[in-house]
Amino acid sequence: MVEQDCIFCRIASGDIPAGRVYEDDQCIAFRDTNPQAPVHLLVIPREHVESLDDVGLKDEPMLGHLMRIASRIANDQGLAENGYRTVINTGASAGQSVFHLHVHVLGGRPLSWPPG
Amino acid sequence: MVEQDCIFCRIASGDIPAGRVYEDDQCIAFRDTNPQAPVHLLVIPREHVESLDDVGLKDEPMLGHLMRIASRIANDQGLAENGYRTVINTGASAGQSVFHLHVHVLGGRPLSWPPG
Repeated sequence: MVEQDCIFCRIASGDIPAGRVYEDDQCIAFRDTNPQAPVHLLVIPREHVESLDDVGLKDEPMLGHLMRIASRIANDQGLAENGYRTVINTGASAGQSVFHLHVHVLGGRPLSWPPG
Repeated sequence: MVEQDCIFCRIASGDIPAGRVYEDDQCIAFRDTNPQAPVHLLVIPREHVESLDDVGLKDEPMLGHLMRIASRIANDQGLAENGYRTVINTGASAGQSVFHLHVHVLGGRPLSWPPG
């Protein structure tokens, strides 16, 4: 279901343009507008799910698909050799700023530890 | 399949003890031995999968299960209110130190951005 006040739902529906790099029937990937690395993409489900806390048992295949696609597009973007990091923030205090589930994919520079 | 030279396979089989907080037929969660936050857990599949790059289409339900369990144990560990971050490193240069797929779950302190 598209939530009209959700910016990621509006990106998924094509209502708002975004730098898409991949899409299929379950998910869309596009460039983060405030990139934190040379490659910084977001992978989101087409279906509105607020956060990882809202993923149920029935959503496991969709969630696994998001993560596998995150890996595939990381490789497509040339990150195979030097690796990449995938991150999901859950809750505003952990850095979640849009309440539509999204996977960050970062690479193209050294990534330090801890991850924030 | 258990890889005898893989420390996470040996934790999964019970051959090496670990601070387990959860287990089921697909995955195990335990405390990171070098914690980077008050709560820092790892969720791993019982099956040996080297990294996110090695996850195939057939593994999507398992991968989604790992991520959903990461969320459930984060909540069990009291991270519901202030949120948490889940991280997968792929490749040594991105911080992957054990080549058995694992999801980091971090919370219990402010988490800055970028994530490393």
